[in-house]
Formats: sequence, C-alpha cells, structure tokens
Amino acid sequence: MRIAILTYPGLTALDAIGPFEVFNILREFEICFVWKEVGPVVADGGRLILGATHTLDEVQCCDLLLVPGSSANTLTVMADDVVMRWLRAVHAGTRFTASVCSGALILAAAGLLGDEPATTHWAAMPLLPRYGAKPEPDKRIVESGKLVTAAGVSAGIDLALHLVAKLLDPERAKIAQLLIEYDPQPPFDSGHMRKAQADIARKAKARMSRIAMTNPRNLISIPKLLTRQWRT
Amino acid sequence: MRIAILTYPGLTALDAIGPFEVFNILREFEICFVWKEVGPVVADGGRLILGATHTLDEVQCCDLLLVPGSSANTLTVMADDVVMRWLRAVHAGTRFTASVCSGALILAAAGLLGDEPATTHWAAMPLLPRYGAKPEPDKRIVESGKLVTAAGVSAGIDLALHLVAKLLDPERAKIAQLLIEYDPQPPFDSGHMRKAQADIARKAKARMSRIAMTNPRNLISIPKLLTRQWRT
Repeated sequence: MRIAILTYPGLTALDAIGPFEVFNILREFEICFVWKEVGPVVADGGRLILGATHTLDEVQCCDLLLVPGSSANTLTVMADDVVMRWLRAVHAGTRFTASVCSGALILAAAGLLGDEPATTHWAAMPLLPRYGAKPEPDKRIVESGKLVTAAGVSAGIDLALHLVAKLLDPERAKIAQLLIEYDPQPPFDSGHMRKAQADIARKAKARMSRIAMTNPRNLISIPKLLTRQWRT
Repeated sequence: MRIAILTYPGLTALDAIGPFEVFNILREFEICFVWKEVGPVVADGGRLILGATHTLDEVQCCDLLLVPGSSANTLTVMADDVVMRWLRAVHAGTRFTASVCSGALILAAAGLLGDEPATTHWAAMPLLPRYGAKPEPDKRIVESGKLVTAAGVSAGIDLALHLVAKLLDPERAKIAQLLIEYDPQPPFDSGHMRKAQADIARKAKARMSRIAMTNPRNLISIPKLLTRQWRT
C-alpha cells in the first residue's frame, strides 16, 4: 500500500512527519516523499531539510495522498499549475486524499474540496470559504467521502491513526499508537483557540502574521550545505 | 539561544521533529541538526531523509542538547566513542540535556544519567537499570536537575513544551502549543502499556522486536538518490 506525501519547499515539517511516523512505525506502507525533483527540501523556518525521494512523474497513483501545510509557502504551491494538475490526477485514483493544517487550502485550490466541509489550521480557516469549502473550526478531523482534512500541525498524528484504522484496521491503529507511545500529556491546555487565554490567542495570531511574511528559503545556509558532499 | 539535535542514521524521525517543531514555530531558537558530517541522514524505516546541518566539531556548546531515540540503531550510537565523547563535552555546558524515547539509553551510555530517575520508550525501559539509571515507566517526562528525559516518540512534543516554559517562559510555551494546535484527540486510548488491551500490547511488543532487528540503512535506495543532484 503506497502513501505519497507532497514535500514542497517551506512545508511545516511536523505536518508531514507526525503522520509519517504513524505509518512508518508499522513498516507496512511504501511511503514516498514527492516533489518536482529528488533531493533536499527546506522546511519552513529554514533550519530543517527533508529529502524528497520521488518526483511527481514517478508517483502517478497511490492509496493515500497526504498534503501538509506551510506557515509561509502555501500560496506559492496553490499558484503552481504543475502541482495542481498532479494533485487532481493522483486524487482520481486514491482511496483517501488527506491534508494537515493549511494543506486543506492546497486541496481547495486544486478544486478537490468543492463545497465539502473541511478543517484546517485556525489561521487558514477564514480562507476556506473563498474556495467554496465549508469550514469546521471546532473539528480536529473532518471526513467527507474520501477527503479527510485535519486541523493545524500536530493534528496530523490523530489524522494518521484515523487513516490507519480505515486503510488497515483499528487493531493496527492501536498498535501504532502504542508503538509511538501516543498518550499525550500537554503541560498546558492551550492547543485550541476556544481554550487559549485571550492574551495568548492574540499574541499567537500576531506571531502567525509575522511568520507568514517570511520567506523560508532565505534562512538556511544553502551554499554551505551544497559545498559539502551529501552522503550516507 | 541554541538547540543541538543529534541526528544519527536510523533515528526515529518524530523523536526529533516533534520537539523541533515546537521550538521552530516560535522562530526564537537557533536549531542545529548535528552529525559527523553535513548531509543526508536516513531515519529508521529507511524511507525518510533528514539533513544534518552541522558537524559535531562545529557545535561545541548549546543551551539545549536533544538526543532522539531509534528503533534499530540506538546500540550503534551507544558504542560510538566519538559520539559519546562529544555528548559528554557538550553536556558540560548545556542548560538542559534532554532525550526522547531510547535516546535516554544513549545519555546513559555516555555516563550522563548516572543513577538518576529517567524515562524512555517502554521497549527500552528494562535496559535503563543496566546503566544505573532508575526507570520511571509511568512518567511521560522526568526532570532531574538539568537532565530531562521523555517517554517514547510522541512524548517529545510534551517535552519540548515543558522545555520552552523553562528556557523562555510559560507564556511562549502556550503560544507554541496554540501555533501547532496541540489539542490532541487520539481516536483510541492505546498510547501507554497500562492502557492498551492485552492483545494489542502483546502484538506491539512482537512488532518492536522485529523492527529492532532490521538495519534501517538497507531499506532506502541510496544509490538512486545519489545519482541525482541535491539542490533547492
């Protein structure tokens, strides 16, 4: 069973790696990190590099297509016709097409969400209706036919457990949960806009606005990396 | 403020990327992925590549040293004198030295845990006493002076929120929690050995034993990746 994760410059790493680990720890899926070319892709914030392992052309079909979000580069991907065409073509053959965080906007821009209910990161929620989708701000996971959208960043872990239960069975989802010891105990209860204190919410919104204006590709020292040999 | 994440072949990606994202989303830390050489490092399972951005020599001091675990390669790192010496040298100057999952065994092997209480992944828990440390199997985070250990894989997110509250302040930890929308809603309650059904626990143990015997570096098609130019 094959999972394709769209791995574009500026993606939010945990959007992809949270779900990845749930699938990976079972060692039952073929997992492809897909981008225009194979090689290093800089995540948002400019400090982490993930490897794209397959080109878009190499992955024309998969059981699960997963689109992560980005704090600063979602709009670039949404305006990329090559990616939009690829998403539509691959989506036609998936069992599930899923997004984490602002990845829902990318699905929407590709025309895949239509007027379905969907969730996304709170900062991206106001943009969903512009593409016709119906925002569900109080839901962490929204399933609508084969489209499954998740809320921001860390929601991808819950999403992936949900998807393993569908793609394989609930037993293996529970095994994956135990293998990654997902028994969350956040030290604060500040993970949703309706739970956070007013001043925390205000400051988080201000930070998100600043982050969204950075160009993630400018931050890491790419020249330094490219003067060294990448090997394993 | 600088954070160094030991990025060794075969590490469990979410052990590193869960905490990374908590720190990264605040955009207030310098974060280094450190290994013997700069370049691609294959995570366990053999499907994901992370980039090491700094060499061990380049990072001689940091505020937080973070050691992730591995399902199959922990012992290799524990037997690596170069890494053990580096950990001891860097630990001497940290504000906090932390581990996720079986990373606690790596700290133990370097002599950093001593006879302190510590936690780790349930599969690694029986090994902690061999190094003198006191296992705390029911705790998700154990703090002992500047040593902070976390339970398996996903516990790194809770750990990082805890550390942000210490390194910066609780307000920014709450902001980070809201920015990554960490309001966990696992679809099952199977994330700890004392919660999982007996048959799930038995099957998870059997899988973990099988995983621990794989060599993660054999799985990915490295030659394919190396024949392409890594660029951004």
